[in-house]
Amino acid sequence: MPHFLNTTDTDFEARFVELLSMKREDSPDVDHIVAGIIDDVRKRGDAAVLELTSKFDRLDLTAETLRFTNDEIKQYCAQVSPEDRSALELAATRIRDYHLRQIPEDKMWTDMDGATLGWRWTPVAAAGLYVPGGIATYPSSVLMNAIPAKVAGVKRLAITVPTPNGDVNPLVLMAAKIAGVDEIYRIGGAQAIAALAYGTETIPPVDKITGPGNAFVAAAKRRVFGKVGIDMIAGPSEILVIADKNNDPDWIAVDLLSQAEHDESAQSILITTDADFGKAVTKAIETRLETLERRVVAGKSWADFGAVIVAKDLDEAAQLSDRFAPEHLELCVDDPDALSLQINHAGAIFLGAYTPEAIGDYVGGPNHVLPTARSARFSSGLSVLDFMKRTTLAKMTPSALEAIGPAAERLAKSESLQAHGLAVRVRLDRLNGAPDE
Amino acid sequence: MPHFLNTTDTDFEARFVELLSMKREDSPDVDHIVAGIIDDVRKRGDAAVLELTSKFDRLDLTAETLRFTNDEIKQYCAQVSPEDRSALELAATRIRDYHLRQIPEDKMWTDMDGATLGWRWTPVAAAGLYVPGGIATYPSSVLMNAIPAKVAGVKRLAITVPTPNGDVNPLVLMAAKIAGVDEIYRIGGAQAIAALAYGTETIPPVDKITGPGNAFVAAAKRRVFGKVGIDMIAGPSEILVIADKNNDPDWIAVDLLSQAEHDESAQSILITTDADFGKAVTKAIETRLETLERRVVAGKSWADFGAVIVAKDLDEAAQLSDRFAPEHLELCVDDPDALSLQINHAGAIFLGAYTPEAIGDYVGGPNHVLPTARSARFSSGLSVLDFMKRTTLAKMTPSALEAIGPAAERLAKSESLQAHGLAVRVRLDRLNGAPDE
Repeated sequence: MPHFLNTTDTDFEARFVELLSMKREDSPDVDHIVAGIIDDVRKRGDAAVLELTSKFDRLDLTAETLRFTNDEIKQYCAQVSPEDRSALELAATRIRDYHLRQIPEDKMWTDMDGATLGWRWTPVAAAGLYVPGGIATYPSSVLMNAIPAKVAGVKRLAITVPTPNGDVNPLVLMAAKIAGVDEIYRIGGAQAIAALAYGTETIPPVDKITGPGNAFVAAAKRRVFGKVGIDMIAGPSEILVIADKNNDPDWIAVDLLSQAEHDESAQSILITTDADFGKAVTKAIETRLETLERRVVAGKSWADFGAVIVAKDLDEAAQLSDRFAPEHLELCVDDPDALSLQINHAGAIFLGAYTPEAIGDYVGGPNHVLPTARSARFSSGLSVLDFMKRTTLAKMTPSALEAIGPAAERLAKSESLQAHGLAVRVRLDRLNGAPDE
Repeated sequence: MPHFLNTTDTDFEARFVELLSMKREDSPDVDHIVAGIIDDVRKRGDAAVLELTSKFDRLDLTAETLRFTNDEIKQYCAQVSPEDRSALELAATRIRDYHLRQIPEDKMWTDMDGATLGWRWTPVAAAGLYVPGGIATYPSSVLMNAIPAKVAGVKRLAITVPTPNGDVNPLVLMAAKIAGVDEIYRIGGAQAIAALAYGTETIPPVDKITGPGNAFVAAAKRRVFGKVGIDMIAGPSEILVIADKNNDPDWIAVDLLSQAEHDESAQSILITTDADFGKAVTKAIETRLETLERRVVAGKSWADFGAVIVAKDLDEAAQLSDRFAPEHLELCVDDPDALSLQINHAGAIFLGAYTPEAIGDYVGGPNHVLPTARSARFSSGLSVLDFMKRTTLAKMTPSALEAIGPAAERLAKSESLQAHGLAVRVRLDRLNGAPDE
């Protein structure tokens, strides 16, 4: 049974904190194994990658067959139905349009002292995208990771996707092709992350790695962080729905189940201002669970981590939501725009009853890679900025240096950094016509 | 002796790669100790923090004296000379002015399908700033970390600064006061990071931790990452100067030494188009080293990691610089603006001979917290964005859902996520007037 809380309950705060601090993920400690795999790939390159692929994916490759050829990609793409293809294309167009607006502006200005200041954004030169194999191969994730990279201007974008027993998902290759990916390698696991970070004879190294993966992939990303950039390590998915009683309980039920079906560790929470509506949603979920294809997964997620919270009003609902800082937040209320202004911490907000979160997973346009496990308190979803970096610029004129240099010299002295002060002083002396030492 | 390379040498590429891949930092493996400290602070809160402070900083505090009172801050600030104070204020004003321009814009638009999309930026609610104690206490770093946080709109900004044996640097407290810091605690090490991340009875937890520290602090930041956000783990500082022969060798010498004096592991590199100029700079460095206060540190850094590289022209110099992706890059050439356009990877660029890097450390305006160890390939210096996060927004009208919903439903099916499809379908059915099931 999911949790059912009412903010008027005397034990509400304790139960709410319990819900907040629930440990949903049991990540096995694979760090030791992963460290060994990374060392092996660094030392032996392709040979290590090929051996590990044979062992874990039961697939014998050579250096020549590590990468999909253009012909192979074409052949797999030909297996995709026209309907699936145009759905992917519609999604790609909308995702691209949204992310194009994220391209940041360079700025440059001259201040009153004559100092010219600013910054310039440049793309990462090469990026790698990890795509999981097996049941959790999501072509939509390929679009969501690859398109921002290409919009940012990343010249070289490589994908690694394991193909256990040689099984390939044509939709993944089609999504990669639509997104403009440059290279696709049929490898996975920690060995793929190591190859992307350090390079092998066949796979040139990249500067940034993004994309979801299992515990091995997550541990490998943590380990190569610093050598390359990585995105957030994603935890199980979450949704929080704030709904008043003027909603169809079944709509809210399927929205909650659309997170629950992802993973037994996913979490779906309803905050409502009407206890009876909360009960109606619970009931609708039970009905839907009777026939849902992924009812075992969704049922376990809902029973273990699901919750219905009755709040006294929408203000209180917004405050509770901020304490969760949910990955996905649906606002199914009369004036969702107004309520959204009360929300400070959420990865993505879906406004109004005609905006189910599932739209955001595929075709809305915003990215579906979002901060989980309350990290929306301090981080954002994937964006074009994740594939760019900013260089700051400063240019002094002699008079600008005369205006602000003495303060720099003074602070350098206070920090006992004499050469810092000298770097300013030798220039000021020249400007003041002091004789060279 | 520093390295002296010429791109025309037959062994240039090998020696250059050696220089690039030099391991400058010997970070001791303190992860095990740090894990114990964090556990202890999580379990015993204030009591653990107080014990560890007594042990490591030889300072006996109580829960009541962990935090500096406003009166204490006032008293220490009174010890700061008016000259130091106004230098800090000038720096703070310039840093604030620069960072105010970084505040990102919210956007919201409606597309042709009637879908309203956009995003909104919000500040992190609470941030913690680690300030090292002892010799490496830099008031300038307090300004560079605290001001972007306050510009971002962080409501609660806490500093931890160890005061070994009770020794306090009044300039640090003054910088904190000028920057608008809200709380200052006299603690340090891994215990300070643990207290900021998990909170104690006296210290409320924060959402984001930034600031430099020793190996214990760096290991602790890595460990709490995920529970809170952190900034990059900074390595030893670097400078790369591209200079033609129309420069005073002594100016370039003191610029190179101003990085070398930071740390024996710091790295200073000159790329010049004139071998004789390169030799003249080397000579000027030797002369300066005879009298420099921090000559032992700077001399060792220069001897072990310093380098002069002779390039055949500025184009080649820019290409070599990009391979370093330096933290600081000075362009002392006739047309620094033009040369800067050839640079793709650098933390900060200082344009022209009157812009020594030391200006950027204190009063230029841009942040001095910058990516080290070639991480400018994929990351940026500290900014207002580090203390904000973006929430994406999406709102469908019924007709927008009719336009793009079927593609979402199709992709959900292709990923075997039935409830995702249902979330769209139940709404489309209502719009199409289908009878309720």
